[in-house]
Amino acid sequence: MLEATQAVDGGVGVLHIVKNYTGDVMNFEMSAEMAEGTEVRSVVIDDDVAVQDSLYTAGRRGVGATVLAEKICGGAAEDGKSLDEVTELCERVNTNAKSMGMALTSCIVPSAGEPTFELGDDEMEIGIGIHGEPGRERKKVASASEVTAMLTRPILDDLGLGEGDEVLAFVNSMGGTPLMELYIVYAELAALLGDRGINIGRNLVGPYITSLEMQGCSITVLKLDDEMKNYWDAPVNTAGLRWGL
Amino acid sequence: MLEATQAVDGGVGVLHIVKNYTGDVMNFEMSAEMAEGTEVRSVVIDDDVAVQDSLYTAGRRGVGATVLAEKICGGAAEDGKSLDEVTELCERVNTNAKSMGMALTSCIVPSAGEPTFELGDDEMEIGIGIHGEPGRERKKVASASEVTAMLTRPILDDLGLGEGDEVLAFVNSMGGTPLMELYIVYAELAALLGDRGINIGRNLVGPYITSLEMQGCSITVLKLDDEMKNYWDAPVNTAGLRWGL
Repeated sequence: MLEATQAVDGGVGVLHIVKNYTGDVMNFEMSAEMAEGTEVRSVVIDDDVAVQDSLYTAGRRGVGATVLAEKICGGAAEDGKSLDEVTELCERVNTNAKSMGMALTSCIVPSAGEPTFELGDDEMEIGIGIHGEPGRERKKVASASEVTAMLTRPILDDLGLGEGDEVLAFVNSMGGTPLMELYIVYAELAALLGDRGINIGRNLVGPYITSLEMQGCSITVLKLDDEMKNYWDAPVNTAGLRWGL
Repeated sequence: MLEATQAVDGGVGVLHIVKNYTGDVMNFEMSAEMAEGTEVRSVVIDDDVAVQDSLYTAGRRGVGATVLAEKICGGAAEDGKSLDEVTELCERVNTNAKSMGMALTSCIVPSAGEPTFELGDDEMEIGIGIHGEPGRERKKVASASEVTAMLTRPILDDLGLGEGDEVLAFVNSMGGTPLMELYIVYAELAALLGDRGINIGRNLVGPYITSLEMQGCSITVLKLDDEMKNYWDAPVNTAGLRWGL
């Protein structure tokens, strides 16, 4: 994903917002090398608290925070912020956003034609990424309340959030989970944050960063500041997000 | 779904937009009887071209057109149109909108705990409604192009659409189908309409009228006029639709 903005020298600069997967990082590096004459910065998103290193990454994976970084940095670029400023904002979003996901089914990658991993009807996979890879651990299915707590606690611990903090709470479908179930998870998340005195200043619920038809969800929490809120609220009209236009 | 607007006598009037299912119709009638002192009108949506009478209805079922009628009539009510005018507009939307749906899986109603109907991995159900009921016929799975043609042809025949007509094209997920697959269907629909010289003036793609986690989609085509377009475009900020606000 690219954000075009004004570079330091007055020319056009480009910010690469790269999910931390080995293939993505490599391809964005090649793209930057090919973009002769254009100033390119890169921010690698690594918000997934489920795993330190995974099948596809060195370090944490990039998941839900990518959506938030793209919207917020897109708003800043459109507002004429410099490449330095947009890059710094993107790094700030990444540092302050953490995510974790779970699946009730594997997706079926069309070229493979069969599920990437097998899950029993009474099992769920905790800590999945967005490439259909298996997660951190397999458990018996639990209630929405228990699942939400499993996903949210590591996020809150990692961010060190506490009373009075304001966040953007993002409940994402992995592709095949209906909105109704996402809202059940959102209600549990809101209760859990409320118990800790954390204020949900903004929210997002829906299928925004998905793995084909995988059933499951992920939770992303972003600690907000005024600049992030301002550019989150800025008008947008894309296939995924639309408001103010 | 209720639209409050100005009644003929200057008091507040209410328009019931009712999907044609026996239970819905009955409950809205009871609600109208209980609303003493409020003028209530009712429009029964019956846009589903798949079946004439179904397990749950006398006459055609109400499906996707309900979403379009709610948005358009909501815009008109907010604009201060009278109860008579909003009711007439709603009837016009219903008359000019037709739908048909298909499923790749049944949903599981939580209280039942098992699929409402059984479908083989290589089968699909054509002409399903939104209550998990089986459809008009069962077929072997086919390509997106073939499925789109199966759903769209009865709609176009029924509406008598032809060269130069302008429509709103709505591709809806039954709940468990990812957006990516909906857009494949939308591309097929756009090609099919384009071949007939029908212009897509507005569109909507996503999970807006669903059956829990059922995998599948429905197609709704609404023949547009200027008033419908005007109120479709009016700003909206709901859980389902948001633009201009």
